[in-house]
Amino acid sequence: MKLYSMPSSGNSYKVRLLLSLLGREIEIVDVEDSSTEILEAKAQGRLPFGKAPVLELEGGRLLPESNAILCYLGEGSAFMPEDGFARAQMLGWMFWEQNAHEGVIAVRAALQSYKNRRHLATPERMAELLERGHALLQVMEDRLSAHDWLAGDAVSLADLCLYGYTHSAGSKGGFDMARFPGINRWIARVAALPGYKGLAA
Amino acid sequence: MKLYSMPSSGNSYKVRLLLSLLGREIEIVDVEDSSTEILEAKAQGRLPFGKAPVLELEGGRLLPESNAILCYLGEGSAFMPEDGFARAQMLGWMFWEQNAHEGVIAVRAALQSYKNRRHLATPERMAELLERGHALLQVMEDRLSAHDWLAGDAVSLADLCLYGYTHSAGSKGGFDMARFPGINRWIARVAALPGYKGLAA
Repeated sequence: MKLYSMPSSGNSYKVRLLLSLLGREIEIVDVEDSSTEILEAKAQGRLPFGKAPVLELEGGRLLPESNAILCYLGEGSAFMPEDGFARAQMLGWMFWEQNAHEGVIAVRAALQSYKNRRHLATPERMAELLERGHALLQVMEDRLSAHDWLAGDAVSLADLCLYGYTHSAGSKGGFDMARFPGINRWIARVAALPGYKGLAA
Repeated sequence: MKLYSMPSSGNSYKVRLLLSLLGREIEIVDVEDSSTEILEAKAQGRLPFGKAPVLELEGGRLLPESNAILCYLGEGSAFMPEDGFARAQMLGWMFWEQNAHEGVIAVRAALQSYKNRRHLATPERMAELLERGHALLQVMEDRLSAHDWLAGDAVSLADLCLYGYTHSAGSKGGFDMARFPGINRWIARVAALPGYKGLAA
């Protein structure tokens, strides 16, 4: 099994975090944004939707989409709730992350971080993303101010998924995280899980 | 069990389609865009992420996100593959739908359909969405020109999910569907499933 992973990307980091928490080591192929490695992987047809991460299974079968990879690797582990409602609630947060959260929280960070996207970071766009991001973070805060974890009563794939871009929303995205004490306690809770590894580790 | 459903929305239609294919009848509460019904449902806290569809379970528990609802209702049915890889592949398409497809294919249709959004439909934006949409539809075409279904060898939740906004991408979104014969055959295949109901039915 082999993971095509973009070192700087929260989507790839989610998968590396789950592997670390599960104590699993697999081959990692780094495909950084705009690198020759990612162009090669694309040319070889290794990135079906044109982006990382992608999990390559024995026999060459390819699985794209970070959250689908989390579900595949997390199946049967403590991070996949057995209860049907908790599992659906977990998936609800994960679909919300891809539909709402990522396109604002991750995108604002990317506009600040990647040099080749800075021309898109107009003051109007950055202000709009800031306001929308604070509203999205408030949705998480509403849950996490009253619960330890996003779905059910225990840590699940939803927490690892949302942690990917939320834990660096202040430092990379410029969001005002002091407004969200519930999120900050939850970030500390994830970072205290046995086997935890940070984004750069 | 009760479904808060927006009659004009592909995301709500996906769920109604699955219920119809499963032969299940549950209470449907129509909450059309900009209606008093949707404002009431929001005020009563029935739409956790601020949008439809939402499934309300016995005891008042709420499940948002169309694709999470599909997974919850489809569990144990023929639309949920037993094989772990096919299931992950199905989820991959469903996450891609929320992250890439919906924000272009559904958004272009919404900009044309909903009067209160027409001021956002500038010629530049509509042209950009057209080009991006054709590229996304080509990703589906690449799969469907060689396979009957998106994941594994049989119809799954991924097909119902992507059918939601793809089957009306020509009529509502203005995309040139003649370019995609594989998608058109797949649309006919979904519409021929026993128990099928169209968007307006």
